[in-house]
Amino acid sequence: MGSRWQKAQELSAARGIDALLITPGADLRYLTGYEALPLERLTCLVLPSEGDPTLVVPALERAAAVASGVDVTVASWNETDDPFALVASLVGDAATIGIDDHMWAARVFALGAALPGADQVLGGSIVSELRIRKDADEAQALREAGVFIDRVHERMGEWLRPGRTEREVGTDIAAAILVEHATCDFVIVGSGPNGASPHHELSDRVIQEGDPVLVDIGGTTPAGYCSDSTRNYLAGGSVPAEYAEFYAVLETAQTAQREHARPGVTAESVDAVGRHIIADAGYGDLFMHRTGHGIGQETHEEPYIVAGNDLVLTEGMAFSIEPGIYVEGHFGARIEDIAICTADGLEVLNNTPRELVIL
Amino acid sequence: MGSRWQKAQELSAARGIDALLITPGADLRYLTGYEALPLERLTCLVLPSEGDPTLVVPALERAAAVASGVDVTVASWNETDDPFALVASLVGDAATIGIDDHMWAARVFALGAALPGADQVLGGSIVSELRIRKDADEAQALREAGVFIDRVHERMGEWLRPGRTEREVGTDIAAAILVEHATCDFVIVGSGPNGASPHHELSDRVIQEGDPVLVDIGGTTPAGYCSDSTRNYLAGGSVPAEYAEFYAVLETAQTAQREHARPGVTAESVDAVGRHIIADAGYGDLFMHRTGHGIGQETHEEPYIVAGNDLVLTEGMAFSIEPGIYVEGHFGARIEDIAICTADGLEVLNNTPRELVIL
Repeated sequence: MGSRWQKAQELSAARGIDALLITPGADLRYLTGYEALPLERLTCLVLPSEGDPTLVVPALERAAAVASGVDVTVASWNETDDPFALVASLVGDAATIGIDDHMWAARVFALGAALPGADQVLGGSIVSELRIRKDADEAQALREAGVFIDRVHERMGEWLRPGRTEREVGTDIAAAILVEHATCDFVIVGSGPNGASPHHELSDRVIQEGDPVLVDIGGTTPAGYCSDSTRNYLAGGSVPAEYAEFYAVLETAQTAQREHARPGVTAESVDAVGRHIIADAGYGDLFMHRTGHGIGQETHEEPYIVAGNDLVLTEGMAFSIEPGIYVEGHFGARIEDIAICTADGLEVLNNTPRELVIL
Repeated sequence: MGSRWQKAQELSAARGIDALLITPGADLRYLTGYEALPLERLTCLVLPSEGDPTLVVPALERAAAVASGVDVTVASWNETDDPFALVASLVGDAATIGIDDHMWAARVFALGAALPGADQVLGGSIVSELRIRKDADEAQALREAGVFIDRVHERMGEWLRPGRTEREVGTDIAAAILVEHATCDFVIVGSGPNGASPHHELSDRVIQEGDPVLVDIGGTTPAGYCSDSTRNYLAGGSVPAEYAEFYAVLETAQTAQREHARPGVTAESVDAVGRHIIADAGYGDLFMHRTGHGIGQETHEEPYIVAGNDLVLTEGMAFSIEPGIYVEGHFGARIEDIAICTADGLEVLNNTPRELVIL
């Protein structure tokens, strides 16, 4: 993994950052391979732009850190030591410190006090610039994540039927994700009107015959890469006319976005392509979220596919394409695939049927 | 829940903090009852020391926030709005802003830019001062958490035996925690030498006949309160002589700590009582962690039972008592109970046998 933190050093030097300080989370895992527990005792990678990095860990997590195979020096602190003083001694006389975007405020303030002469700036963009482009191994890991979550969607008929609650269906889905040797990150089963709340999770609502049901699920593979796919089901009965009409618009929009996204176009243009179609059909106000988010070791990461993001997509960028239309009090639908930019096009990693599936 | 945020307002005013800004996490849940997803879109409670609070949420999470029953005004922002400008407009001309201790650095910096005239200070101690003393409902919730995790320990003989891997045993334990309608927060099965790494989790090591096995498990109940208990088992065979000797010291130390802890004594004195016993027996260097941590809506919270913490315990404080002794390369043991201070003593919430259980 050395090449990753070495690349971060090069970027830091180019940006005038003398040292990056990274606390537990996806950035630390990406740079060192160490999946630290996000606990109250300080764990912090001190990564100077020149020279050797040091991973500062609590003494009782030293064994776990070493066992994870990190290729950096591990320095540990005991229960009554001041870990911020230890970090400061390793930072030395660095003038500009790049702080992990997700570092807790209490740590930001403590480091400010321990390093009163240094300027704190956000350092997350350094690591994000590396993480945003997946290499071949990462692309393969995301491909495998897509395949497993597709297998779970394909089994939906075993669980989703009228008379069961969303929670019962969701519990079965969660178990099926675990059987795939993944962690279960989230399960949304939005039946009938609950489908109109984009971040609804599970409720005790009993699914009714003929309900449209939005199912958005995701889990992380043993390799540490995330999946995220939304499909739409009908719990028996026949398709409500209003639903059929708006679902056709959604399918057209999502297809257009998949056909548009590729290296060389901007993130916001992918959003716009679908948004125009939905707006032209009169549903513009009902598509109130961005089109997508990057995905990798985190379910949501750069790049965000949203108006205002003029980032040009390049090979290796992976993200969701998930337009949705939500009719409050009635139903909602969203079609979501993960896709990754290849050298000259787009590889879609979810491939179960996108049309409404009648169970 | 109004009384909680009103109490936080009173404390803020007394400390010269004009507004508290709280992002998703246990503090937000404690103050409002809303369990927000810790995602990249900003959710933030703006709690002025006087006047009405406002919960700022992304538009697509408005329904979830309202459905959670929060008793504060909900203000939402759309995908291309600047949520920090919205927070700043609600903060107004407050001079001193109390920042959530766990707020992400990127948000701390963005709020600093949006409120250039305000001083940022850490605000976590305001909420912690409330959370550290459990009321009767919270004490009951912790009691129920203790009872369920005890039930899981009582079933250990169903799963733990020579020939199985730690991971197999741990997977069964995790499933048993889920059957209790709890979330599974962590499972540590430290067999033989793995017991000597305090934060070891699970490995593919096959448990051997006669291995001492440290099992530390915890989960959160549907009411949102955490459990955490460690017991020690022998996988058949007979007790190694060296182990028997050191385990007796550990039991004596943990018993002394349970008998000492009560309102009026300091947190550090509870640690010292056990540490002296272990040190006198010659194992001082092998008990390298603090005695315990507070517990409630988080597994680790205030008060920490550690040298240097001269906090005087009072009624309603709940914490772990978990001395451990770790012999690197051989084995380790830890005895952990959750306990809560009553008006004049200590109620221990875990009550399975503390002696080595031979399976």
